[in-house]
Amino acid sequence: MVLGKVVGTVWATRKDEQLTGMKLQIVRELALDGTVRDRFVVAVDSVGAGIGETVLMAQGSSARQTDITRNRPVDAVITAIVDRVDAEGAA
Amino acid sequence: MVLGKVVGTVWATRKDEQLTGMKLQIVRELALDGTVRDRFVVAVDSVGAGIGETVLMAQGSSARQTDITRNRPVDAVITAIVDRVDAEGAA
Amino acid sequence: MVLGKVVGTVWATRKDEQLTGMKLQIVRELALDGTVRDRFVVAVDSVGAGIGETVLMAQGSSARQTDITRNRPVDAVITAIVDRVDAEGAA
Amino acid sequence: MVLGKVVGTVWATRKDEQLTGMKLQIVRELALDGTVRDRFVVAVDSVGAGIGETVLMAQGSSARQTDITRNRPVDAVITAIVDRVDAEGAA
Amino acid sequence: MVLGKVVGTVWATRKDEQLTGMKLQIVRELALDGTVRDRFVVAVDSVGAGIGETVLMAQGSSARQTDITRNRPVDAVITAIVDRVDAEGAA
Repeated sequence: MVLGKVVGTVWATRKDEQLTGMKLQIVRELALDGTVRDRFVVAVDSVGAGIGETVLMAQGSSARQTDITRNRPVDAVITAIVDRVDAEGAA
Repeated sequence: MVLGKVVGTVWATRKDEQLTGMKLQIVRELALDGTVRDRFVVAVDSVGAGIGETVLMAQGSSARQTDITRNRPVDAVITAIVDRVDAEGAA
Repeated sequence: MVLGKVVGTVWATRKDEQLTGMKLQIVRELALDGTVRDRFVVAVDSVGAGIGETVLMAQGSSARQTDITRNRPVDAVITAIVDRVDAEGAA
Repeated sequence: MVLGKVVGTVWATRKDEQLTGMKLQIVRELALDGTVRDRFVVAVDSVGAGIGETVLMAQGSSARQTDITRNRPVDAVITAIVDRVDAEGAA
Repeated sequence: MVLGKVVGTVWATRKDEQLTGMKLQIVRELALDGTVRDRFVVAVDSVGAGIGETVLMAQGSSARQTDITRNRPVDAVITAIVDRVDAEGAA
């Protein structure tokens, strides 16, 4: 999984019906020292993460293993809101 | 998922029969500020996106979770036409 | 999917028996302006593409969704021979 | 698979219930000479690896093929603690 | 698939039991001209490849489509020993 920071939201009216009702959050990847990277993805939120929160994100087919994303065209999902990172070099 | 901009179309007569009738769009990835990146993929369009539109794209096995791509040799699909991006640093 | 150019062939006698009879083509990725990139993959050919042809290639689990690659240890397949690319910035 | 070094732990209270009880380790990738790279992922630990240990890590859907990760939204898992690397250029 | 060169072996006693008996080879990726790249992965060997041999490697879920890797936490497998590469720019 990847550590990220929620920085925004994507709005779309015309979409695959399987995406109906899903919150599409923009998540920028975090470096180990807590700085945000340029790389970002749009992820479905399964845990109610708000803007500015540090999150854990699963990608690929693993992103479809939550109750709200199962069998849907989703390749990134927020699976946790991070309380703390204990690591050498972490901020 | 990834944000992209539809910039063109691929035409192919000789192809795997499972691709018959599918629109193959060229999608360049977008940075968060809305500028287009060099990186691009060819994606099947499931929502009728036109040239110049900003879209959401799913990749990998998740690209096969729409009605028109299921069980087909497709690894990228346009799943939404983006109305608005609300994000720190977005254009 | 990715646009590529077939530039060669790989020959192997000792191999997993599920690869028996498969043509293994070397495909270099193409930029949007038609120039070849350094990046290349070895792909199974499902459409009879010859050296020098521009092709469409699917990767990952999607590469196993053709009749000849199903359930085999193959992660890249040529799915179409490209007739034309209509795109901003295309050659 | 990828060689990595366990450098830390991620703590999260609010998370997808399928992650309950899983140890989330931060693993930095190793170069062949044993130096740590900047690239890191958060992986579920299936073998009891401690901080500072060199490990083997599987990613993508293969990360869900252990008893503790099956069908869960997990895209990286530690599958072995490495005793020794015999390689040209290895430290 | 990717062309690689076997450069070493990984030894691990404490591991997921599904990896028992598998030979874990270190494979460095090859450029088209035959030079080895820095990028490497640890792959299960399904064809008896020795150190120094040029091999074909499948990754991701496709790496689980051989008899010895099926349903196991393995994301890279050697599927062939390469006899010859015929390509523009190949050594």
